[in-house]
Amino acid sequence: MKFHKVLIANRGEIAVRIIRACRELDISTVAVYSEADKDSLHVRLADEAYCIGPILSKDSYLNVTNIMSVATLTGCDAIHPGYGFLAENADFAEICESCNITFIGPSADAINRMGDKSVAKLTMKEAGVPVIPGSDGIVDSLDEAIILGRDIGYPLIIKATAGGGGKGIRIAEDEDSLIKQITAAQQEAQKAFGNAGVYLEKYLTGMKHVEIQIIADNYGHVVHLGERDCSIQRRRQKLLEEAPCPILSPEIRERMGEAAIRAAKSVQYSGAGTLEFLLGDDGQFYFMEMNTRIQVEHPVTELVTGVDLIKEMISVAEGHSLSFRQEDIVINGWAIECRINAEDPDKNFMPAPGKILFYLPPGGPGVRIDSAAYQGYTIPPYYDSMIAKLIVWAPTRQEAIAKMKRALSEFMVEGIHTTIPFHQKLLKHPTFIEGDFDIKFLEENEI
Amino acid sequence: MKFHKVLIANRGEIAVRIIRACRELDISTVAVYSEADKDSLHVRLADEAYCIGPILSKDSYLNVTNIMSVATLTGCDAIHPGYGFLAENADFAEICESCNITFIGPSADAINRMGDKSVAKLTMKEAGVPVIPGSDGIVDSLDEAIILGRDIGYPLIIKATAGGGGKGIRIAEDEDSLIKQITAAQQEAQKAFGNAGVYLEKYLTGMKHVEIQIIADNYGHVVHLGERDCSIQRRRQKLLEEAPCPILSPEIRERMGEAAIRAAKSVQYSGAGTLEFLLGDDGQFYFMEMNTRIQVEHPVTELVTGVDLIKEMISVAEGHSLSFRQEDIVINGWAIECRINAEDPDKNFMPAPGKILFYLPPGGPGVRIDSAAYQGYTIPPYYDSMIAKLIVWAPTRQEAIAKMKRALSEFMVEGIHTTIPFHQKLLKHPTFIEGDFDIKFLEENEI
Repeated sequence: MKFHKVLIANRGEIAVRIIRACRELDISTVAVYSEADKDSLHVRLADEAYCIGPILSKDSYLNVTNIMSVATLTGCDAIHPGYGFLAENADFAEICESCNITFIGPSADAINRMGDKSVAKLTMKEAGVPVIPGSDGIVDSLDEAIILGRDIGYPLIIKATAGGGGKGIRIAEDEDSLIKQITAAQQEAQKAFGNAGVYLEKYLTGMKHVEIQIIADNYGHVVHLGERDCSIQRRRQKLLEEAPCPILSPEIRERMGEAAIRAAKSVQYSGAGTLEFLLGDDGQFYFMEMNTRIQVEHPVTELVTGVDLIKEMISVAEGHSLSFRQEDIVINGWAIECRINAEDPDKNFMPAPGKILFYLPPGGPGVRIDSAAYQGYTIPPYYDSMIAKLIVWAPTRQEAIAKMKRALSEFMVEGIHTTIPFHQKLLKHPTFIEGDFDIKFLEENEI
Repeated sequence: MKFHKVLIANRGEIAVRIIRACRELDISTVAVYSEADKDSLHVRLADEAYCIGPILSKDSYLNVTNIMSVATLTGCDAIHPGYGFLAENADFAEICESCNITFIGPSADAINRMGDKSVAKLTMKEAGVPVIPGSDGIVDSLDEAIILGRDIGYPLIIKATAGGGGKGIRIAEDEDSLIKQITAAQQEAQKAFGNAGVYLEKYLTGMKHVEIQIIADNYGHVVHLGERDCSIQRRRQKLLEEAPCPILSPEIRERMGEAAIRAAKSVQYSGAGTLEFLLGDDGQFYFMEMNTRIQVEHPVTELVTGVDLIKEMISVAEGHSLSFRQEDIVINGWAIECRINAEDPDKNFMPAPGKILFYLPPGGPGVRIDSAAYQGYTIPPYYDSMIAKLIVWAPTRQEAIAKMKRALSEFMVEGIHTTIPFHQKLLKHPTFIEGDFDIKFLEENEI
């Protein structure tokens, strides 16, 4: 099968990224947009574009009825959900299938099994993937929690099973703290996700966030594309990602890759996905969660492997076998991504939407810009605050850092605050240069 | 040695390109500019910038006294000449050396020996590099020309020995035409270059312009980085270049590469240089000329080899050995460059300088932009008409063409005419897609 027309159920840079892949594959594109986004670049670049509702996401980018109407009326073969919005919504994947429109992503069943975090953990444990010591699934009572706490040891982390993206998480330093927080956590989870289920995990420290990119076709082939180090986080939001991970040995990479492949196979996964792990100094790693979609930071993997992940997602959704085997994947050089957001790093990263009065992204060798920004564009306050992903490639990490510093120094965005100054400081920090930072690095260090 | 400060004796995209390389190498940069260029991007991006004279190149970018004054007063270790202007001026290279400032390029002697086209041809012949059948050097009399004409056969091409870039060239279809044109050609050469010397060559048809990139250090190491096909020319001006050449076999590549290395060694070459050849259907190739500088189209070689040519030029000028050996060079994938010029392709490529009212270059995977343009910039009418070099990389030629089409389709330049529509038509032409075009292709085909 070959798709003739794809609807992109997203906005911003990822919508632009998908339009670019489709155009290179000679597939027509249909953009959808909210009333706030009529001047967006994805609307300009797509072959067709339709307004699907008012400003609020729930009325537009999450409006399944309107999106399906556009897809049906314009004769789309498939829908690419990007990330966020409907990307990990199993119901939406099912609705697509029932309308005979291919959802470019895994099956609803795989999304469901990975979407429930405690089910995901059990699934992984059964597949022989190392998981963080903790409760086997949801904790039903305070008594059970106390027994588990004595068994696993403190500190403990309380997580909502329906949570994600760092939301609904609490830390218990001791038994008293656990007793105090568990009910509150359940109530919070019920309120935020409509599901009161929480589970417990050992709270590990000194860990890196290292994730493995996988891609799978409909015929049981799964290939991993190496790892990304995403430990540079502020309040669980990634700010800078790199590939490969500066402290990972080829042996651990192979073990993590094999675990990721086992995990994907255990849920008959198809499409692009990411297994997120915590990695300790000792080379021990533990499954955190699986993202059943393309991720913001996918370009660093593309730059070190030469694989176009969006094109490959489309190809496997068309029913083709993967275009490469595991042995074809070679990690070449180093890639770093900085998320350039409309935020004021001097004011606690307060969102700073507004009009871009002058815009000139960097260029030259080894520099990639994934962005939906342009001079004169007003970044709306309603969605994420991303201006651009600035991604660089160089033969070594040292050269990649030098290139990123160069690229940041010439990136001109006037009219709004950006995270460029933050990245410039981060890249000079000795611990960053050394590569030996963990997920607490930004919390514990003044940048 | 490590340079601390480099003066860039150029403007536009190549000045920006060199500033970028210097910044990544932690070398300070000094830009120079004419009165017409005070708002240029190279002036904004350099660490320091000095006006060196009025609009006309001879008063500014060719003003050796002023350039050397800036270099000396700002304490520069070296000067990078870019291309054009002083890049192949042996006197300038000598003046730099006499001021104890490193000229980032070959020796004055190598520039001289390659600058005189008939001397260059003899030098190549002696080095065992195939040359186009013709006179061994300058033709002294009409009688000699007639005898040579009978010997070599018609058509013949008459070239000025001091010429370059396609200037001062005439074609003689037969003996009558030769007699008529040779005196005129001598007079024209005297007027244009201050040197009446002309030489004769067999006028070969059905040939491709294929050039070999070489780089050499001061210790006799020379490496070739494969070829570029630059056959897409209009009035001997290159418009699109690609690497590798679509019809070149690995055997011919190796033979051309070896010839290029022999050529460079015969003049004790150092730095980056290009051997231009004509390549026939039968795999026969003939030396045309050597460019003793970096070329406009160098990025396609960078993208298929992973080598940063500007950084390597700086490194060898600092006195380091080449950072790679011949066996390290692997040609990976396909790269294409389109020169986006401020010209009107519908009006015979008439230069169309003016103010850029809206500017948004393409981005995403595999796209590189080398440019000094920005929104609001006015392209002056005094120098070249380049807006940007758009370069793409993909695993195969077919994918690279698709990517270039995608990138061209989203390149937004408003306010002035550009060559974007020309490239869009060219990329759809069946002969271009096939790859089997020669240097007459644009002359003989309606695009």
